[in-house]
Amino acid sequence: MSGAEIDRLIQLLAKLPGLGPRSARRAVLYMLKRREAYMLPLGSAIGEVAQAIHTCRICGNLDTTDPCPICTDESRDGGLVCVVEDVADLWAIERTSSYTGRYHVLGGILSALDGIRPEDLNIAALVDRAASGAVREVILAMNATVEGQSTAHYLTDRLAATGVKVSRLAHGVPIGGELDYLDEGTLAAALKARRPL
Amino acid sequence: MSGAEIDRLIQLLAKLPGLGPRSARRAVLYMLKRREAYMLPLGSAIGEVAQAIHTCRICGNLDTTDPCPICTDESRDGGLVCVVEDVADLWAIERTSSYTGRYHVLGGILSALDGIRPEDLNIAALVDRAASGAVREVILAMNATVEGQSTAHYLTDRLAATGVKVSRLAHGVPIGGELDYLDEGTLAAALKARRPL
Repeated sequence: MSGAEIDRLIQLLAKLPGLGPRSARRAVLYMLKRREAYMLPLGSAIGEVAQAIHTCRICGNLDTTDPCPICTDESRDGGLVCVVEDVADLWAIERTSSYTGRYHVLGGILSALDGIRPEDLNIAALVDRAASGAVREVILAMNATVEGQSTAHYLTDRLAATGVKVSRLAHGVPIGGELDYLDEGTLAAALKARRPL
Repeated sequence: MSGAEIDRLIQLLAKLPGLGPRSARRAVLYMLKRREAYMLPLGSAIGEVAQAIHTCRICGNLDTTDPCPICTDESRDGGLVCVVEDVADLWAIERTSSYTGRYHVLGGILSALDGIRPEDLNIAALVDRAASGAVREVILAMNATVEGQSTAHYLTDRLAATGVKVSRLAHGVPIGGELDYLDEGTLAAALKARRPL
Protein backbone atom coordinates (compact mmCIF):
# COMPACT_ATOMS: atom_id res chain seq x y z
CA MET A 1 0.00 0.00 0.00
CA SER A 2 1.74 3.20 1.08
CA GLY A 3 5.23 3.62 2.47
CA ALA A 4 5.95 2.49 6.02
CA GLU A 5 6.24 6.09 7.29
CA ILE A 6 2.86 6.99 5.78
CA ASP A 7 1.27 3.89 7.35
CA ARG A 8 2.72 4.80 10.73
CA LEU A 9 1.37 8.34 10.42
CA ILE A 10 -2.11 7.00 9.56
CA GLN A 11 -1.98 4.70 12.61
CA LEU A 12 -0.93 7.59 14.88
CA LEU A 13 -3.70 9.88 13.62
CA ALA A 14 -6.30 7.12 13.93
CA LYS A 15 -5.76 7.24 17.72
CA LEU A 16 -7.16 10.78 17.97
CA PRO A 17 -10.66 10.99 19.46
CA GLY A 18 -13.27 11.08 16.71
CA LEU A 19 -10.92 9.68 14.07
CA GLY A 20 -10.68 6.09 12.88
CA PRO A 21 -8.57 4.34 10.24
CA ARG A 22 -10.72 5.68 7.40
CA SER A 23 -10.76 9.33 8.46
CA ALA A 24 -7.05 9.11 9.37
CA ARG A 25 -6.31 8.00 5.79
CA ARG A 26 -8.36 10.91 4.42
CA ALA A 27 -6.54 13.31 6.76
CA VAL A 28 -3.12 12.03 5.67
CA LEU A 29 -4.04 12.31 1.99
CA TYR A 30 -5.22 15.87 2.63
CA MET A 31 -1.83 16.59 4.17
CA LEU A 32 0.21 14.85 1.45
CA LYS A 33 -1.44 16.99 -1.22
CA ARG A 34 -0.65 20.18 0.72
CA ARG A 35 2.96 19.58 1.71
CA GLU A 36 4.19 23.17 1.78
CA ALA A 37 0.98 24.99 2.67
CA TYR A 38 -0.29 22.66 5.37
CA MET A 39 1.72 19.57 6.29
CA LEU A 40 5.05 21.22 7.14
CA PRO A 41 3.39 24.02 9.21
CA LEU A 42 1.23 21.43 11.01
CA GLY A 43 4.23 19.27 11.90
CA SER A 44 6.08 22.32 13.23
CA ALA A 45 3.05 23.59 15.16
CA ILE A 46 2.58 20.22 16.89
CA GLY A 47 6.29 19.98 17.69
CA GLU A 48 6.46 23.54 19.02
CA VAL A 49 3.41 23.21 21.25
CA ALA A 50 4.63 19.80 22.49
CA GLN A 51 7.97 21.38 23.44
CA ALA A 52 6.37 24.34 25.16
CA ILE A 53 3.39 22.78 26.96
CA HIS A 54 3.33 22.96 30.76
CA THR A 55 0.88 22.17 33.53
CA CYS A 56 0.25 25.41 35.41
CA ARG A 57 1.65 25.05 38.95
CA ILE A 58 -1.18 27.17 40.35
CA CYS A 59 -4.35 25.96 38.66
CA GLY A 60 -3.45 22.81 36.70
CA ASN A 61 -4.29 24.38 33.31
CA LEU A 62 -2.27 23.25 30.29
CA ASP A 63 -0.54 26.07 28.45
CA THR A 64 2.73 27.11 26.89
CA THR A 65 3.66 29.17 29.96
CA ASP A 66 3.77 28.23 33.66
CA PRO A 67 2.03 29.84 35.53
CA CYS A 68 -0.58 29.98 32.79
CA PRO A 69 -1.75 33.32 31.24
CA ILE A 70 -5.02 33.16 33.20
CA CYS A 71 -3.24 32.88 36.57
CA THR A 72 -0.89 35.77 35.73
CA ASP A 73 -3.53 38.05 34.18
CA GLU A 74 -3.78 40.88 36.73
CA SER A 75 -7.07 42.07 35.20
CA ARG A 76 -8.77 38.85 36.34
CA ASP A 77 -10.38 38.48 39.77
CA GLY A 78 -8.05 36.31 41.87
CA GLY A 79 -10.69 36.11 44.60
CA LEU A 80 -12.94 33.99 42.39
CA VAL A 81 -11.89 30.41 41.56
CA CYS A 82 -13.93 28.20 39.23
CA VAL A 83 -13.22 24.47 39.73
CA VAL A 84 -13.49 22.32 36.58
CA GLU A 85 -12.89 18.64 35.88
CA ASP A 86 -10.78 19.15 32.82
CA VAL A 87 -8.98 21.71 30.65
CA ALA A 88 -11.75 21.17 28.05
CA ASP A 89 -14.25 22.62 30.54
CA LEU A 90 -11.97 25.59 31.23
CA TRP A 91 -11.83 26.25 27.48
CA ALA A 92 -15.64 25.96 27.25
CA ILE A 93 -16.13 28.56 30.01
CA GLU A 94 -13.51 30.87 28.46
CA ARG A 95 -15.40 30.74 25.15
CA THR A 96 -18.41 32.32 26.85
CA SER A 97 -16.28 35.45 27.51
CA SER A 98 -18.43 35.97 30.59
CA TYR A 99 -16.13 34.82 33.39
CA THR A 100 -13.31 37.02 34.68
CA GLY A 101 -12.13 34.98 37.67
CA ARG A 102 -9.47 32.28 37.76
CA TYR A 103 -9.68 28.46 37.54
CA HIS A 104 -8.65 25.26 39.23
CA VAL A 105 -8.42 22.13 37.07
CA LEU A 106 -9.02 18.88 39.00
CA GLY A 107 -7.70 16.67 36.20
CA GLY A 108 -10.62 14.23 36.54
CA ILE A 109 -13.61 13.30 38.61
CA LEU A 110 -14.05 11.04 41.64
CA SER A 111 -15.17 7.63 40.45
CA ALA A 112 -15.46 4.44 42.48
CA LEU A 113 -15.93 2.55 39.21
CA ASP A 114 -12.70 3.83 37.64
CA GLY A 115 -10.83 3.82 40.97
CA ILE A 116 -10.26 7.61 40.96
CA ARG A 117 -9.75 8.70 44.61
CA PRO A 118 -9.39 12.23 46.01
CA GLU A 119 -5.59 11.87 46.19
CA ASP A 120 -5.53 11.19 42.42
CA LEU A 121 -6.99 14.64 41.72
CA ASN A 122 -5.61 18.17 42.10
CA ILE A 123 -7.65 18.69 45.31
CA ALA A 124 -5.03 19.36 48.01
CA ALA A 125 -3.78 22.38 46.04
CA LEU A 126 -7.36 23.66 45.76
CA VAL A 127 -7.86 23.49 49.53
CA ASP A 128 -4.52 25.26 50.03
CA ARG A 129 -5.57 28.00 47.59
CA ALA A 130 -8.93 28.41 49.31
CA ALA A 131 -7.24 28.56 52.75
CA SER A 132 -4.62 31.11 51.61
CA GLY A 133 -6.93 34.06 52.31
CA ALA A 134 -6.75 35.37 48.75
CA VAL A 135 -9.86 33.48 47.61
CA ARG A 136 -13.36 34.82 48.30
CA GLU A 137 -15.55 32.32 46.44
CA VAL A 138 -15.11 28.89 44.86
CA ILE A 139 -17.51 28.01 42.02
CA LEU A 140 -17.88 24.24 41.53
CA ALA A 141 -18.42 23.77 37.79
CA MET A 142 -18.53 19.98 37.59
CA ASN A 143 -20.63 18.21 34.97
CA ALA A 144 -24.26 17.70 36.03
CA THR A 145 -23.69 13.94 36.18
CA VAL A 146 -23.86 11.66 39.21
CA GLU A 147 -20.06 11.52 39.46
CA GLY A 148 -19.72 15.26 38.89
CA GLN A 149 -22.21 16.01 41.61
CA SER A 150 -20.68 13.61 44.13
CA THR A 151 -17.28 15.19 43.46
CA ALA A 152 -18.90 18.60 44.10
CA HIS A 153 -20.30 17.34 47.42
CA TYR A 154 -16.92 15.98 48.43
CA LEU A 155 -15.25 19.31 47.58
CA THR A 156 -17.91 21.24 49.53
CA ASP A 157 -17.03 19.16 52.60
CA ARG A 158 -13.29 19.62 52.11
CA LEU A 159 -13.67 23.39 51.58
CA ALA A 160 -16.01 23.92 54.58
CA ALA A 161 -13.11 24.39 57.02
CA THR A 162 -11.63 27.22 54.91
CA GLY A 163 -14.73 29.40 55.42
CA VAL A 164 -14.70 30.33 51.73
CA LYS A 165 -18.07 30.78 49.99
CA VAL A 166 -18.83 27.77 47.76
CA SER A 167 -21.32 27.97 44.86
CA ARG A 168 -22.33 25.84 41.90
CA LEU A 169 -23.63 26.50 38.38
CA ALA A 170 -27.38 27.10 38.04
CA HIS A 171 -29.57 24.33 36.68
CA GLY A 172 -32.37 25.27 34.31
CA VAL A 173 -33.72 25.36 30.77
CA PRO A 174 -30.89 25.65 28.21
CA ILE A 175 -31.12 28.77 26.00
CA GLY A 176 -33.05 27.73 22.89
CA GLY A 177 -34.27 24.59 24.66
CA GLU A 178 -37.82 23.34 24.19
CA LEU A 179 -39.68 22.30 27.35
CA ASP A 180 -41.25 19.34 25.60
CA TYR A 181 -37.83 17.81 24.97
CA LEU A 182 -36.33 18.51 28.42
CA ASP A 183 -35.86 15.77 30.99
CA GLU A 184 -38.03 15.97 34.13
CA GLY A 185 -35.06 16.64 36.43
CA THR A 186 -34.01 19.78 34.54
CA LEU A 187 -37.57 21.04 34.28
CA ALA A 188 -38.18 20.47 38.01
CA ALA A 189 -34.92 22.31 38.82
CA ALA A 190 -35.88 25.20 36.54
CA LEU A 191 -39.31 25.48 38.19
CA LYS A 192 -37.83 25.40 41.68
CA ALA A 193 -35.23 28.05 40.81
CA ARG A 194 -37.75 30.30 39.00
CA ARG A 195 -36.87 34.00 38.94
CA PRO A 196 -39.14 37.04 39.32
CA LEU A 197 -39.60 39.00 36.07
CA MET B 1 -8.69 30.97 26.28
CA SER B 2 -5.60 28.91 25.46
CA GLY B 3 -2.21 30.18 24.36
CA ALA B 4 -1.82 31.58 20.87
CA GLU B 5 0.21 28.55 19.72
CA ILE B 6 -2.48 26.15 20.96
CA ASP B 7 -5.19 28.19 19.22
CA ARG B 8 -3.23 28.12 15.98
CA LEU B 9 -2.81 24.35 16.25
CA ILE B 10 -6.56 23.91 16.80
CA GLN B 11 -7.28 26.06 13.73
CA LEU B 12 -4.84 24.03 11.62
CA LEU B 13 -6.31 20.69 12.69
CA ALA B 14 -9.87 21.95 12.12
CA LYS B 15 -9.05 22.16 8.38
CA LEU B 16 -8.61 18.38 8.09
CA PRO B 17 -11.49 16.60 6.34
CA GLY B 18 -13.98 15.25 8.88
CA LEU B 19 -12.75 17.54 11.67
CA GLY B 20 -14.31 20.81 12.80
CA PRO B 21 -13.45 23.28 15.57
CA ARG B 22 -14.95 21.04 18.26
CA SER B 23 -13.22 17.82 17.27
CA ALA B 24 -9.98 19.75 16.65
CA ARG B 25 -10.11 21.00 20.25
CA ARG B 26 -10.68 17.46 21.50
CA ALA B 27 -7.79 16.22 19.37
CA VAL B 28 -5.43 18.92 20.69
CA LEU B 29 -6.42 18.16 24.31
CA TYR B 30 -5.77 14.48 23.66
CA MET B 31 -2.30 15.45 22.40
CA LEU B 32 -1.53 17.88 25.23
CA LYS B 33 -2.21 15.17 27.79
CA ARG B 34 0.13 12.74 26.01
CA ARG B 35 3.10 14.97 25.30
CA GLU B 36 5.87 12.36 25.37
CA ALA B 37 3.96 9.28 24.29
CA TYR B 38 1.97 10.81 21.44
CA MET B 39 2.38 14.48 20.64
CA LEU B 40 6.15 14.58 20.07
CA PRO B 41 6.14 11.38 17.94
CA LEU B 42 3.18 12.70 15.91
CA GLY B 43 4.90 16.03 15.23
CA SER B 44 8.05 14.21 14.10
CA ALA B 45 6.11 11.72 11.97
CA ILE B 46 4.28 14.51 10.13
CA GLY B 47 7.50 16.47 9.63
CA GLU B 48 9.42 13.42 8.38
CA VAL B 49 6.73 12.35 5.92
CA ALA B 50 6.34 15.96 4.70
CA GLN B 51 10.08 16.13 4.06
CA ALA B 52 10.17 12.79 2.25
CA ILE B 53 6.96 12.84 0.22
CA HIS B 54 7.27 12.74 -3.57
CA THR B 55 4.97 12.37 -6.55
CA CYS B 56 6.07 9.25 -8.42
CA ARG B 57 7.42 10.30 -11.83
CA ILE B 58 6.04 7.14 -13.43
CA CYS B 59 2.52 6.71 -12.02
CA GLY B 60 1.68 9.87 -10.05
CA ASN B 61 1.40 8.01 -6.71
CA LEU B 62 2.43 9.89 -3.55
CA ASP B 63 5.10 8.14 -1.51
CA THR B 64 8.36 8.70 0.31
CA THR B 65 10.38 7.39 -2.64
CA ASP B 66 10.35 8.34 -6.33
CA PRO B 67 9.71 6.16 -8.31
CA CYS B 68 7.25 4.73 -5.79
CA PRO B 69 7.64 1.21 -4.29
CA ILE B 70 4.84 -0.11 -6.51
CA CYS B 71 6.54 1.03 -9.73
CA THR B 72 9.89 -0.44 -8.64
CA ASP B 73 8.50 -3.74 -7.28
CA GLU B 74 9.79 -6.30 -9.79
CA SER B 75 7.32 -8.91 -8.52
CA ARG B 76 4.41 -6.83 -9.85
CA ASP B 77 3.12 -7.16 -13.40
CA GLY B 78 4.33 -4.11 -15.34
CA GLY B 79 2.13 -5.08 -18.29
CA LEU B 80 -1.03 -4.31 -16.31
CA VAL B 81 -1.82 -0.65 -15.44
CA CYS B 82 -4.84 0.29 -13.32
CA VAL B 83 -5.91 3.92 -13.84
CA VAL B 84 -7.40 5.64 -10.77
CA GLU B 85 -8.63 9.16 -10.10
CA ASP B 86 -6.80 9.62 -6.84
CA VAL B 87 -4.20 8.14 -4.49
CA ALA B 88 -7.08 7.27 -2.13
CA ASP B 89 -8.43 4.88 -4.79
CA LEU B 90 -4.98 3.33 -5.24
CA TRP B 91 -4.85 2.72 -1.48
CA ALA B 92 -8.34 1.21 -1.58
CA ILE B 93 -7.37 -1.25 -4.31
CA GLU B 94 -4.12 -2.12 -2.52
CA ARG B 95 -6.10 -2.96 0.63
CA THR B 96 -7.90 -5.71 -1.30
CA SER B 97 -4.50 -7.49 -1.72
CA SER B 98 -5.92 -8.88 -4.96
CA TYR B 99 -4.17 -6.73 -7.57
CA THR B 100 -0.59 -7.35 -8.60
CA GLY B 101 -0.25 -4.91 -11.50
CA ARG B 102 0.87 -1.28 -11.43
CA TYR B 103 -1.10 1.99 -11.31
CA HIS B 104 -1.56 5.33 -12.96
CA VAL B 105 -2.98 8.17 -10.84
CA LEU B 106 -4.87 10.82 -12.88
CA GLY B 107 -4.97 13.32 -10.01
CA GLY B 108 -8.64 14.16 -10.62
CA ILE B 109 -11.54 13.63 -12.96
CA LEU B 110 -12.72 15.48 -16.07
CA SER B 111 -15.38 17.97 -15.04
CA ALA B 112 -16.94 20.69 -17.15
CA LEU B 113 -18.50 22.08 -13.96
CA ASP B 114 -15.20 22.42 -12.11
CA GLY B 115 -13.29 23.36 -15.27
CA ILE B 116 -11.02 20.28 -15.15
CA ARG B 117 -9.77 19.63 -18.70
CA PRO B 118 -7.72 16.69 -20.03
CA GLU B 119 -4.52 18.77 -19.88
CA ASP B 120 -5.08 19.32 -16.14
CA LEU B 121 -4.82 15.57 -15.50
CA ASN B 122 -1.94 13.09 -15.71
CA ILE B 123 -3.24 11.76 -19.06
CA ALA B 124 -0.38 12.44 -21.54
CA ALA B 125 1.95 10.30 -19.39
CA LEU B 126 -0.64 7.49 -19.39
CA VAL B 127 -0.85 7.51 -23.21
CA ASP B 128 2.97 7.49 -23.39
CA ARG B 129 3.12 4.53 -20.99
CA ALA B 130 0.49 2.65 -22.99
CA ALA B 131 2.32 3.37 -26.27
CA SER B 132 5.72 2.30 -24.91
CA GLY B 133 5.11 -1.36 -25.73
CA ALA B 134 5.56 -2.53 -22.13
CA VAL B 135 1.86 -2.32 -21.28
CA ARG B 136 -0.53 -5.12 -22.22
CA GLU B 137 -3.77 -3.96 -20.58
CA VAL B 138 -5.11 -0.75 -19.03
CA ILE B 139 -7.87 -1.14 -16.41
CA LEU B 140 -9.98 2.01 -16.03
CA ALA B 141 -10.99 2.09 -12.34
CA MET B 142 -12.87 5.38 -12.25
CA ASN B 143 -15.74 5.93 -9.82
CA ALA B 144 -19.09 4.72 -11.18
CA THR B 145 -20.33 8.32 -11.36
CA VAL B 146 -21.28 10.33 -14.44
CA GLU B 147 -17.98 12.23 -14.37
CA GLY B 148 -15.99 9.06 -13.70
CA GLN B 149 -17.62 7.29 -16.63
CA SER B 150 -17.18 10.20 -19.03
CA THR B 151 -13.51 10.35 -18.06
CA ALA B 152 -13.29 6.60 -18.77
CA HIS B 153 -14.86 7.12 -22.21
CA TYR B 154 -12.42 9.93 -22.97
CA LEU B 155 -9.47 7.73 -21.95
CA THR B 156 -10.76 4.83 -24.07
CA ASP B 157 -10.69 7.15 -27.12
CA ARG B 158 -7.21 8.45 -26.30
CA LEU B 159 -5.84 4.93 -25.73
CA ALA B 160 -7.43 3.45 -28.91
CA ALA B 161 -4.44 4.43 -31.09
CA THR B 162 -2.00 2.55 -28.84
CA GLY B 163 -3.69 -0.80 -29.54
CA VAL B 164 -3.53 -1.69 -25.83
CA LYS B 165 -6.43 -3.67 -24.34
CA VAL B 166 -8.67 -1.41 -22.25
CA SER B 167 -11.00 -2.81 -19.56
CA ARG B 168 -13.15 -1.47 -16.73
CA LEU B 169 -14.26 -2.75 -13.31
CA ALA B 170 -17.32 -5.02 -13.26
CA HIS B 171 -20.65 -3.60 -12.15
CA GLY B 172 -22.87 -5.78 -9.98
CA VAL B 173 -24.31 -6.58 -6.58
CA PRO B 174 -21.88 -5.58 -3.79
CA ILE B 175 -20.80 -8.48 -1.56
CA GLY B 176 -23.24 -8.53 1.38
CA GLY B 177 -25.64 -6.26 -0.54
CA GLU B 178 -29.39 -6.83 -0.38
CA LEU B 179 -31.27 -6.70 -3.68
CA ASP B 180 -34.16 -4.83 -2.11
CA TYR B 181 -31.89 -1.91 -1.24
CA LEU B 182 -29.96 -1.76 -4.54
CA ASP B 183 -30.64 0.94 -7.11
CA GLU B 184 -32.19 -0.17 -10.41
CA GLY B 185 -29.08 0.67 -12.45
CA THR B 186 -26.86 -1.66 -10.44
CA LEU B 187 -29.45 -4.45 -10.47
CA ALA B 188 -29.95 -4.14 -14.22
CA ALA B 189 -26.16 -4.25 -14.75
CA ALA B 190 -25.86 -7.32 -12.52
CA LEU B 191 -28.62 -9.11 -14.45
CA LYS B 192 -27.09 -8.29 -17.80
CA ALA B 193 -23.62 -9.46 -16.70
CA ARG B 194 -24.93 -12.66 -15.04
CA ARG B 195 -22.47 -15.54 -14.82
CA PRO B 196 -23.01 -19.27 -15.31
CA LEU B 197 -22.78 -21.29 -12.07
